[in-house]
Amino acid sequence: MKTIELRAPYLIFLGSETRLTYAKTGAGLVEWRKELCKGQLNLAGGDLDLGLPQMSVAEAKAAGIQSLVIGTATVGGSIPDEWIDVLEEAVLLGLDIVAGVHTRLSDIDRLTAAAAKSGAKLIDVRVPPKRLPVGTGRKRTGKRVLMVGTDCAVGKKYTALQMEKDMKRLGWNADFRASGQTGIMIAGSGLPIDSVVSDFLSGAAELLSPDNTDDHWDVIEGQGGIFHPGYSSVTMGLLIGSQPDVFVVCHEAGRTHISGWEDFPLPSIEQVIERTIAIGELVNPDITCVGVSVNTSRLKADEREAYLAELSSRIGLPCVDPLQGGTDSIIAQISAVMASRNPSARSA
Amino acid sequence: MKTIELRAPYLIFLGSETRLTYAKTGAGLVEWRKELCKGQLNLAGGDLDLGLPQMSVAEAKAAGIQSLVIGTATVGGSIPDEWIDVLEEAVLLGLDIVAGVHTRLSDIDRLTAAAAKSGAKLIDVRVPPKRLPVGTGRKRTGKRVLMVGTDCAVGKKYTALQMEKDMKRLGWNADFRASGQTGIMIAGSGLPIDSVVSDFLSGAAELLSPDNTDDHWDVIEGQGGIFHPGYSSVTMGLLIGSQPDVFVVCHEAGRTHISGWEDFPLPSIEQVIERTIAIGELVNPDITCVGVSVNTSRLKADEREAYLAELSSRIGLPCVDPLQGGTDSIIAQISAVMASRNPSARSA
Repeated sequence: MKTIELRAPYLIFLGSETRLTYAKTGAGLVEWRKELCKGQLNLAGGDLDLGLPQMSVAEAKAAGIQSLVIGTATVGGSIPDEWIDVLEEAVLLGLDIVAGVHTRLSDIDRLTAAAAKSGAKLIDVRVPPKRLPVGTGRKRTGKRVLMVGTDCAVGKKYTALQMEKDMKRLGWNADFRASGQTGIMIAGSGLPIDSVVSDFLSGAAELLSPDNTDDHWDVIEGQGGIFHPGYSSVTMGLLIGSQPDVFVVCHEAGRTHISGWEDFPLPSIEQVIERTIAIGELVNPDITCVGVSVNTSRLKADEREAYLAELSSRIGLPCVDPLQGGTDSIIAQISAVMASRNPSARSA
Repeated sequence: MKTIELRAPYLIFLGSETRLTYAKTGAGLVEWRKELCKGQLNLAGGDLDLGLPQMSVAEAKAAGIQSLVIGTATVGGSIPDEWIDVLEEAVLLGLDIVAGVHTRLSDIDRLTAAAAKSGAKLIDVRVPPKRLPVGTGRKRTGKRVLMVGTDCAVGKKYTALQMEKDMKRLGWNADFRASGQTGIMIAGSGLPIDSVVSDFLSGAAELLSPDNTDDHWDVIEGQGGIFHPGYSSVTMGLLIGSQPDVFVVCHEAGRTHISGWEDFPLPSIEQVIERTIAIGELVNPDITCVGVSVNTSRLKADEREAYLAELSSRIGLPCVDPLQGGTDSIIAQISAVMASRNPSARSA
């Protein structure tokens, strides 16, 4: 049983797109995994530049590129007919195609026929692998930090990626673990947790952070929100399967209600901490909150520092905007928490 | 958007089965919905008798039967080749086929070809309908009682069916709502909640008990257990989507650990009550426990009464074995709770 696995390096396919907001996937890949992005391919009319060498599919193949990643979204999530010639050519040359759009690659006959010929894979990161297991609750080796949120879209993926980056800079043995489609493209592996059949949700979450060495940290992308009227069960299954040692609450400053569910007030950060511990204790009795990651983009620049300081004083934990100042103080808190559990453990 | 819907009356198909334990589905249908079961069909070698008239498929058609329901399980959940002739004949005559076995009816070419010809449906009660919605959290009209459990397989379906029966006898306007495959066959409709993609779990649960009249009670079959290491997120999604006014805790006397997860001690009934209220308050601030339904089959006959009395005194709520004495005391508790909320409401 396996997670989705992508083959690097990548050619980022940008179609005829001209708007950077529609190319978040490609831009995110370049931001977080520049070393894996070896080229970009614009079709006629497209002028987006991610700062990568322009390459045809044949040039990409010659340069050793393994996968063509669709880096743009279209309205409605379709795959336009004018893309098919290029995608088919790539598949016939043996490049995997990676997509997270609504239309399934496997529903496009020319691509499945080409893949059958060349052996290349059509990888839809929104489709979980088959035969996922039921969660066992077995305690795994290694350490885990999970992002949880006061809501969806508060920066859980961004925080996890920044924490992985900061941990690595500090010499930690850490890996970002992706639970959503964009994260999977960036990580090159993962599972789209919200697309898993409910019976196998915590089992899928267990696969995402397998047994590891004692010093290894899985930095797990969160999903949904534990007080979310639509997605709380996704959050719970991921929490139970992740059996986190510690967690970070992600929040957007100024948000007052669940986005899109305006009858539901946002839970407080304290409520999220309390509920996450209450549920997570089932699989990890030591589960502890180590900090709050806040998207402060709605605040004025001169309000940010005071907001974070006040929050930190209220919660009694490091509170950061990862985009402004990184996550080092949260990582230091992890060190402190783990050292207090096991005095022989490493300190930051 | 719809739940699975079956067309009654039914012909119960028993294959060549000789062991009643393998015909639980058929036996359950006859126990709870005898008025919908018009005939049974045994193949050569089969001698199970559910007390229904023996009928060929042609006789069933002539008698106005609408669906052939596969009432037995095979080892491995397959559909044996020797069944196909009869099933195909039924489909060609326009009878729907209803199955909950592992093999999908739609994977059997002869059946799909026959269905295309006759317009009959192949209904796999383990397969949820497509295009389920995301949960909205919108408060629906009507009343709801949800079964929750200290574990799986503690009598949640049985309790709900007995409560529906007792409520109807007492003149209440009530409907059993099925969230699992056997329940769906008995109810003739429902959704296999544990087979729904995680993102749509609470949305599916919302579909299961739609808006209704103020005096109407949905008696909702529960799934999993809120402290279950494999299935807690299924339980949570069903709880959030059901927005129950009241709930019943189902339990098996003598069970000490989660069945099949022996490292996990069974939660106490009090813990299940507390956690169910904590989570359910998000969508129904009035959520209250109204009693405990205990499977006492492991106890000696002379221990049962004392066990239930002691438990009732400990919890402060009616505690019954529905198989022994029905659920009237729990229904009376519902009356009392609802009357205390709204003095003009009906009393039992």
